[in-house]
Amino acid sequence: MADKKVLIVYAHQEPRSFNGSLKTTAVEELSRQGCAVTVSDLYAMGFEPRTMRQDIVGDLSNPKHFNYGVEVYEAFKKRSLTSDILAEQKKVQEADLVIFQFPLYWMSTPAILKGWMDRVLCQGFAFRFPDFYYDTGYFKDKLALLSLTTGGTAEMYSKSGDMGDIRYYLWPLQHGILRFCGFKVLAPQISFAPEFVSQEERKLMVASWAQRLKNIWEEEPIDCSPACYFDQ
Amino acid sequence: MADKKVLIVYAHQEPRSFNGSLKTTAVEELSRQGCAVTVSDLYAMGFEPRTMRQDIVGDLSNPKHFNYGVEVYEAFKKRSLTSDILAEQKKVQEADLVIFQFPLYWMSTPAILKGWMDRVLCQGFAFRFPDFYYDTGYFKDKLALLSLTTGGTAEMYSKSGDMGDIRYYLWPLQHGILRFCGFKVLAPQISFAPEFVSQEERKLMVASWAQRLKNIWEEEPIDCSPACYFDQ
Repeated sequence: MADKKVLIVYAHQEPRSFNGSLKTTAVEELSRQGCAVTVSDLYAMGFEPRTMRQDIVGDLSNPKHFNYGVEVYEAFKKRSLTSDILAEQKKVQEADLVIFQFPLYWMSTPAILKGWMDRVLCQGFAFRFPDFYYDTGYFKDKLALLSLTTGGTAEMYSKSGDMGDIRYYLWPLQHGILRFCGFKVLAPQISFAPEFVSQEERKLMVASWAQRLKNIWEEEPIDCSPACYFDQ
Repeated sequence: MADKKVLIVYAHQEPRSFNGSLKTTAVEELSRQGCAVTVSDLYAMGFEPRTMRQDIVGDLSNPKHFNYGVEVYEAFKKRSLTSDILAEQKKVQEADLVIFQFPLYWMSTPAILKGWMDRVLCQGFAFRFPDFYYDTGYFKDKLALLSLTTGGTAEMYSKSGDMGDIRYYLWPLQHGILRFCGFKVLAPQISFAPEFVSQEERKLMVASWAQRLKNIWEEEPIDCSPACYFDQ
């Protein structure tokens, strides 16, 4: 797919990690297809996760009572968001597909990636309440995919497992964030417990990711209704 | 309860915010009861949310392949975690009750608070897998309570609302994090859409929080089973 653009938002500290291998595999396979691939390597960039006054360049609309949501929406409209947010927004704007590559930390994204969501996906850019969200969210023509690794095994993340169904943890991310912004969500790529399997099994997990990416542009988005996540 | 210690982990940028009022109200009411109250004001502290090599003082066990989870567990055992993590762990260790006061950002905690979870609640301190977690988690004699504000209304966070049931978003936090560490979880204090109600209604929300805190030590923990979160 020579005309497609992909953004990989990657959150791992160690290039030699399993997450690093999955990221590199995606870059290689998608580039081989002719896609233009951009990687936001959050730790390497020293990406700032905190939502702060500094995100707005120049004056605030109400300096006496700082309201982050209100101020960044105003700043977005005036093009006065700080440069690292603008740079990430440009990458998202240009992408046909956004892949998030991360290890599950406390049943969610690592804080550095949560900060990317908090700061980059602001009102005006990703959605505008109450007119443009979910099916009318600004990214309705884009695809998104979570590629995550877990510490626990698939059994632990099953309905009868200690943690409960992995889908319960995907709902806030896939429905609450991605679908809210309009993204069509592809099935998550979940690599369970890579630290606790053999080198051979890790290789198979990477190979299966590479294989899936060969046909990624033919995939249909998943149904993101509550029934798909929570029905017994 | 003159002998009780409370830690409030507070994540809002603006002291004059509604979150700030709820935090101040809790400090005042609990202090009035004779509790020793400590506040971790994350933005004011400039709390670091990113999980990085700097969290380990001195040598790594495997500098050639940085694995955050492994390294912090080792560092915890050697007392070589960085000082801001140790300071927060000391506060948690001493607390009978930990209250998290935050605005819901993208259906979860703001990144700065997620980073507090990621960095402070490390293996060895909060749990030890596979022997000490959930009912045997290290904080089994402590209480925890999420006090959060939302942008959306209660109707939007109902089963038939756009976002879906608010409980779906509480599961990863209350079950996935707090219960995993052993905490007994008190019912969440949810202040819906304070930005969109009258000043009078906001005052009532603050008053109801103060009222609840008067009897907080008599409350029973909630049932945290999947049925309570997901059954129709």
